[in-house]
Amino acid sequence: MIEFSSDYNEGAHPRLIAKLVETNMVQTFGYGSDAYCDEAADIIRNLCGQKDLDVHFIVGGTLTNLISISACLRPHQGVISPTNGHIHVQETGSIEATGHKILTIPSKNGKITAAQIDEYCEEYLNNEGIVHLVQPKLVYITHPTELGTLYTRAEMLAISDVCKKRNLYLYVDGARLGYGLVAEGNDTDLKLITECCDIFYIGGGKQGALFGEAVVIKDKAIASDFRPIMKQRGGLLSKGRLLGIQFSELFKDDLYFEISRHANNMASLIRECLKKMGIEFFVENTTNLLFPILPDEMHDELSKQYSLTYYKRWDKTSSVIRIATSWATLEQNVMKFIRDLEEYACA
Amino acid sequence: MIEFSSDYNEGAHPRLIAKLVETNMVQTFGYGSDAYCDEAADIIRNLCGQKDLDVHFIVGGTLTNLISISACLRPHQGVISPTNGHIHVQETGSIEATGHKILTIPSKNGKITAAQIDEYCEEYLNNEGIVHLVQPKLVYITHPTELGTLYTRAEMLAISDVCKKRNLYLYVDGARLGYGLVAEGNDTDLKLITECCDIFYIGGGKQGALFGEAVVIKDKAIASDFRPIMKQRGGLLSKGRLLGIQFSELFKDDLYFEISRHANNMASLIRECLKKMGIEFFVENTTNLLFPILPDEMHDELSKQYSLTYYKRWDKTSSVIRIATSWATLEQNVMKFIRDLEEYACA
Amino acid sequence: MIEFSSDYNEGAHPRLIAKLVETNMVQTFGYGSDAYCDEAADIIRNLCGQKDLDVHFIVGGTLTNLISISACLRPHQGVISPTNGHIHVQETGSIEATGHKILTIPSKNGKITAAQIDEYCEEYLNNEGIVHLVQPKLVYITHPTELGTLYTRAEMLAISDVCKKRNLYLYVDGARLGYGLVAEGNDTDLKLITECCDIFYIGGGKQGALFGEAVVIKDKAIASDFRPIMKQRGGLLSKGRLLGIQFSELFKDDLYFEISRHANNMASLIRECLKKMGIEFFVENTTNLLFPILPDEMHDELSKQYSLTYYKRWDKTSSVIRIATSWATLEQNVMKFIRDLEEYACA
Amino acid sequence: MIEFSSDYNEGAHPRLIAKLVETNMVQTFGYGSDAYCDEAADIIRNLCGQKDLDVHFIVGGTLTNLISISACLRPHQGVISPTNGHIHVQETGSIEATGHKILTIPSKNGKITAAQIDEYCEEYLNNEGIVHLVQPKLVYITHPTELGTLYTRAEMLAISDVCKKRNLYLYVDGARLGYGLVAEGNDTDLKLITECCDIFYIGGGKQGALFGEAVVIKDKAIASDFRPIMKQRGGLLSKGRLLGIQFSELFKDDLYFEISRHANNMASLIRECLKKMGIEFFVENTTNLLFPILPDEMHDELSKQYSLTYYKRWDKTSSVIRIATSWATLEQNVMKFIRDLEEYACA
Repeated sequence: MIEFSSDYNEGAHPRLIAKLVETNMVQTFGYGSDAYCDEAADIIRNLCGQKDLDVHFIVGGTLTNLISISACLRPHQGVISPTNGHIHVQETGSIEATGHKILTIPSKNGKITAAQIDEYCEEYLNNEGIVHLVQPKLVYITHPTELGTLYTRAEMLAISDVCKKRNLYLYVDGARLGYGLVAEGNDTDLKLITECCDIFYIGGGKQGALFGEAVVIKDKAIASDFRPIMKQRGGLLSKGRLLGIQFSELFKDDLYFEISRHANNMASLIRECLKKMGIEFFVENTTNLLFPILPDEMHDELSKQYSLTYYKRWDKTSSVIRIATSWATLEQNVMKFIRDLEEYACA
Repeated sequence: MIEFSSDYNEGAHPRLIAKLVETNMVQTFGYGSDAYCDEAADIIRNLCGQKDLDVHFIVGGTLTNLISISACLRPHQGVISPTNGHIHVQETGSIEATGHKILTIPSKNGKITAAQIDEYCEEYLNNEGIVHLVQPKLVYITHPTELGTLYTRAEMLAISDVCKKRNLYLYVDGARLGYGLVAEGNDTDLKLITECCDIFYIGGGKQGALFGEAVVIKDKAIASDFRPIMKQRGGLLSKGRLLGIQFSELFKDDLYFEISRHANNMASLIRECLKKMGIEFFVENTTNLLFPILPDEMHDELSKQYSLTYYKRWDKTSSVIRIATSWATLEQNVMKFIRDLEEYACA
Repeated sequence: MIEFSSDYNEGAHPRLIAKLVETNMVQTFGYGSDAYCDEAADIIRNLCGQKDLDVHFIVGGTLTNLISISACLRPHQGVISPTNGHIHVQETGSIEATGHKILTIPSKNGKITAAQIDEYCEEYLNNEGIVHLVQPKLVYITHPTELGTLYTRAEMLAISDVCKKRNLYLYVDGARLGYGLVAEGNDTDLKLITECCDIFYIGGGKQGALFGEAVVIKDKAIASDFRPIMKQRGGLLSKGRLLGIQFSELFKDDLYFEISRHANNMASLIRECLKKMGIEFFVENTTNLLFPILPDEMHDELSKQYSLTYYKRWDKTSSVIRIATSWATLEQNVMKFIRDLEEYACA
Repeated sequence: MIEFSSDYNEGAHPRLIAKLVETNMVQTFGYGSDAYCDEAADIIRNLCGQKDLDVHFIVGGTLTNLISISACLRPHQGVISPTNGHIHVQETGSIEATGHKILTIPSKNGKITAAQIDEYCEEYLNNEGIVHLVQPKLVYITHPTELGTLYTRAEMLAISDVCKKRNLYLYVDGARLGYGLVAEGNDTDLKLITECCDIFYIGGGKQGALFGEAVVIKDKAIASDFRPIMKQRGGLLSKGRLLGIQFSELFKDDLYFEISRHANNMASLIRECLKKMGIEFFVENTTNLLFPILPDEMHDELSKQYSLTYYKRWDKTSSVIRIATSWATLEQNVMKFIRDLEEYACA
């Protein structure tokens, strides 16, 4: 079975593995207070173009989201999220388990707009019974989104502006940030995201690391007590250096972006093939997640050799299927998949 | 200013006040362990037609909802609610503050259907990544709804059936239950609700009492530890007898239903007048809440003498306005309102 | 059975009842936004000697404590409490249910000292693994304490000073504040408490009201979002005026203090009688709660006619018993109790 | 600087690292649903001597504790813990953050007894105001304890018996379980622990793994919804196989116990040396954590070359110091430490 079901089907990029092997018996203090984490944080601050940033490393996206979001909120405050936001539909109520409501805004292609956020706040403020409403305080977006789409520089700046106007924090879930930043047509970068956000994270677990997300905090109030909150939620890894070692390596020699490009290229090969075959897509994007609408028969046939993710029913005879490539996707597997697709088309 | 803004603009029905005065210096033990609460519970069990019911009294609907709902759920479970459910839009995230997600189903006229609940559960069960989803465990509905509409006997039985099939608890928020049970066209009653629900509450605060909701629990598991959970959430009134005294009186001589009928009658007078004037309604109902679509000018004019609740904008020149009557609404005020309406129409 | 088991065995002082009857059919807006609440708040601000105070009214002490305390804390922060603090031993984990740890300091006669608080903070700060510890941020004390003892002016000022030095909030639970402020030997008053505290509450439910506690907030940050947090926890009474009406009346003509004096006087009569009989006390105090160490036989005999509270075993043949008087305690009942005590002593 | 400050100062045992390297590019499904996790679970079930056990793998002890404990409790229930329990003093209020109170019992040498637990429950049940108390439902102990001491077979059976009698769950935190099971004088084993507990965990992170704890669940009710609760709290590692791979290797050829023996042996060498020097110990034990009472001058001198953990002040001139060995401790470092100790003694 060849895996296209997700971007975490393998271990870590060999260079990270090598570094873990190399440093294995070095002695360090725990909980992220070590030279490797310091180094990784410095590299990230540099890439983000700001010196005064707190950087923390956490194992896993759900843990990162629940710690980051709850750290931003007072008890009666909630987080604005697209209706298809990962925190809303895929994390078993992890945000609510910290006591906070998710305030949803309908998403289009996985994205929401500055205007929608502004309107939400306007309605909140105009409500006569405002004390009965959850106060919006934080905006959560993913970049790229769950659907592999991207915010443009203009869109992100507009969202950031409306957040500042409405006294909202902006948090970007960058679980697949690398795949987004090197995607064709993307005009955002780490410096822009740092400029726009109060807090965001750079994903490692889906992008070359065994695990690990790097949380970047610009806002001083959020930064001030982030570490004890990490610990309280079980997010302070005792051998924290494992995260520092991996992120240091990931950001050396442009590795993070190079392997992201590979994933996108692999996805492009499949995308082009499917398009040539006349397959339509649920959503257009240029990153590593494809959402073709496949005839059920075709999906069944492919599923014999390839692990794909069922996304949702499209019509009586076809469904939206998610195909994921990653830094680890072998070109030979993609080529085989394409050959099988073409064969299927001819049959 | 004459109040039509809500059904809690006055104190309590004079008979309840008289009873509170009469018993004021009697000595009892606290926390609901007194003869008055016992008596009220017995009366309610009788009205519900079942002997083996736990009855508890709580001050206030939000507190009642958050205690009742959180008492039904395991950490990863959530409550299904209509999108316009009071717990979802009017209680400042009180359910989420207990750690649980509200799973919304689009409502029509404030109601959801058995089929919608069934479909929600089916989709949940069919999801490959079920572990990432909040498990639906409880259905929350209001009867009458936020829009003053009512479930029919058939609808409620169908919902109850699907809950049993799907292993869901059913909870009815009866903040305005009396107004519903005596409404024209209603074919439900306390016995049906008891039969259908695992837990529900009979509202007092909006229906003749100073405050107080009577929670009726049929399910043994929920009942088993409800009292310590009430205490933990601050819902165990020290002078608990105040609740027992009021509910005992409220259910003597049919008082509860008699005063509910009065409220509905007062609403009917206004409804008929508005209809005669050609005013359309956002929703049709037969209870004590009216939702006419009023021209903004008319609303402005009426607001000089009457306190009404702004519900939402309808179009550029008119809005949905909520008019509430109650057990306490004076017929003379209704008559004056009607005269003013008619005058306005003629002008 | 004559009740000495607690100070909430009766309804409300007749003057409050009269006021509730008198205002019963007046129409007001809900949720504490009414002239009665405004008036009560003004009276309280006046008594506290400061104009810039937020005053909110909540039904019940547990609800008041959990709302007030959780409103003061960030997720990783906890509340320092005496080991016998009401929140620690009598409220079913209500504070923990809001997510916060109670940090206990051993109490002596129900009290803790400024030096203990200072030492706790010093140890916290000196801990190498500070990130693994709950940060103390709030000090909770009761005045009078659970044991009816009182902080002196000097002790309270010292506690306030150490709180300022250590950047802690100070919160006083004044469930029985009136009984304390008029007690023999007391040298504290509302102005001192206001000066010392960031937030505190004046108890009504045990001191003449049907229910109700008045929360006084001096700190601007806590005040800024207290109302939505009240709502979220179910602490915003829909007919909020019931609280305003009672507190207004309670503080007119010195009523609150006058009836507190009565309770203390009744307690003094019993205290003196027991002392004359040679009965020793678990703790010395001058307020309305007595803790005599009674022979079990005597306790059994008295329990036939009087409801007392068992506090704890003292030795094989005697126990600490709590006797409570209140604003409502009848002198004739106290006299009968004393006669029965004397008779028992002679027998 | 040579590390004796903790047992997580290095990476993983080379055999585990080798296995991670070897399997790095294998493709598997995520979230612990893979052959490696299945294999590791089977090995553990075998070692525990029971087939019908759920085994889950979680990154980190705090996360494991908060998930396991909250999964066992209803809202009003709490967990009994020794006063020095890790969850009470070292995890930043993580249990309270899930809404539950920790009910402390004074510990002696880190341990509590069956009799203490029984007495706690008896007092709870005899309290007249039981509804105001947190219900004890779970007992938390560590084995070995925070102080490196061990429960005997008889003690653990007695605790298990009292838990059954009192309807309590028993949970053993086995963060350092291996070090305990191979310690001199220990008479417990995995089969006994499985027999006694409803849920427990076998620590990996401090015992040869990069990270990871294996939760073993015997109780069917707890097991039934453990996975979604893991996910909700961020404890479901996407590349879950990393945990399975490590635990499989750890339990092959007795590796886990062999490396634990090494750690204990290294500790013994230091212990004997200190004893010969006349150094007294805060607590006697036979595992990998030593708690000598060192003169401050000696501690200062040693700290120039060795990283030790300051535990607490003993008297004006000496302190309790924690020295930790581990699977990774080099004998040459221990020998050098002993030489330096002896030199210091002679100087």
